[in-house]
Amino acid sequence: MGDYAPRALQFTRMALELYWGSGSPYSWRVMLALEHKRLPYESHLLEFSKQEHKSPQMLKLNPRGLLPVLRDGDYVIFESLAILYYLDEKYPERPLFGRNPEEAGTIMRVICEYQANAEPLIGTVSRAVFAGSLVRRMDEMTATVHRIASEARVIEARLSQCDWIVGEQVSAVDFVVFPGIQLLLRALKREEAADLGSRFLPLDVNYPALARWFARVEALPGYERTYPPHWRQQPAK
Amino acid sequence: MGDYAPRALQFTRMALELYWGSGSPYSWRVMLALEHKRLPYESHLLEFSKQEHKSPQMLKLNPRGLLPVLRDGDYVIFESLAILYYLDEKYPERPLFGRNPEEAGTIMRVICEYQANAEPLIGTVSRAVFAGSLVRRMDEMTATVHRIASEARVIEARLSQCDWIVGEQVSAVDFVVFPGIQLLLRALKREEAADLGSRFLPLDVNYPALARWFARVEALPGYERTYPPHWRQQPAK
Repeated sequence: MGDYAPRALQFTRMALELYWGSGSPYSWRVMLALEHKRLPYESHLLEFSKQEHKSPQMLKLNPRGLLPVLRDGDYVIFESLAILYYLDEKYPERPLFGRNPEEAGTIMRVICEYQANAEPLIGTVSRAVFAGSLVRRMDEMTATVHRIASEARVIEARLSQCDWIVGEQVSAVDFVVFPGIQLLLRALKREEAADLGSRFLPLDVNYPALARWFARVEALPGYERTYPPHWRQQPAK
Repeated sequence: MGDYAPRALQFTRMALELYWGSGSPYSWRVMLALEHKRLPYESHLLEFSKQEHKSPQMLKLNPRGLLPVLRDGDYVIFESLAILYYLDEKYPERPLFGRNPEEAGTIMRVICEYQANAEPLIGTVSRAVFAGSLVRRMDEMTATVHRIASEARVIEARLSQCDWIVGEQVSAVDFVVFPGIQLLLRALKREEAADLGSRFLPLDVNYPALARWFARVEALPGYERTYPPHWRQQPAK
């Protein structure tokens, strides 16, 4: 019996498989959550450039051809927020959604606010930068960065009160917001975005609490394993 | 002691207060959920036309000035999906997110898919109809209705397999999707949208399983209390 339990445990745990893409903020959220919960998983890194996420076997898992996709034994789930929620229901240790209904509700509320208000703007700016359409859309992008700044001030105000975006512990909302900020910084640090970037950066001057939180996330155990591999190979500048 | 317990119970329960707007699909979701859970609540119907949702006391509850807002004693929550999640964590009887982690995950996944894919399209079409800009944007709106139709076919396929969108019981995903379909039907039944509507309607011919599900939601106990009051006074046509 002595080694039965650990083996069974290991078998259950290694049933987790993550299909993900490098640089996808949605994938990154789930990796941060898996590291936080200390759940080992089999990693399947797919190449967007080769359309591997649209392969017939991936479309069988997610007919929309989007990443990330999580497999847990026979169970398949996608949509990053749903994956975080599933992981927390299935593996309640080291919670992602707080320790009581009020915390849970507020964590979900701030996630919904971020997704409705900040995320589409960050998507617009980063797509414009990476697609090379920044210069001819500069006025629109300047206005968009100002709207992002106003959302960042809301988060800055929260982080001036405590170490994590909601409550005293790291939670799903930190994992949802962090990859988006990373993507924004990567876009704004590109040479052609210098003027645009000056309206938001430097982070530690304009958003000191956010900058400290940012470093706190980067110091989480397992963080390095979640960093997009192609970002290491191709730094922003 | 005889009447102490009921009074205490009533006090606890009546601590729920909902601030909502007539015809807001987000408010409607929460009302359907409250009826499903049989949670009594104090109803505060605010008039959008009088900007009551932007009053100083409402901005204190939700600085974004959006509805619905739920108050539960001293706790305040907004963002409809977060409210549904909070209600399920706080009042677990008659669950909204299924009976096990797999069901919970799939319910959340289909909600996320609906919110990412169908909801913005329904918003675009209904705003165009109600704002009177339909005629000059007809080509764009026709394309949008075709995309909505493709999302409706995905839900139709699910509902051909079971009575509710996910699993054997009514759940949060039914309450999230239903008000959106109602809003779409109200827009498409307007006289000036007749041509556009013919690409989607009649529901019972083009989406028979969806139409049966629609009637099933309308037959839920308490449904009548959730119906937007100003829709009764001003029917679609």
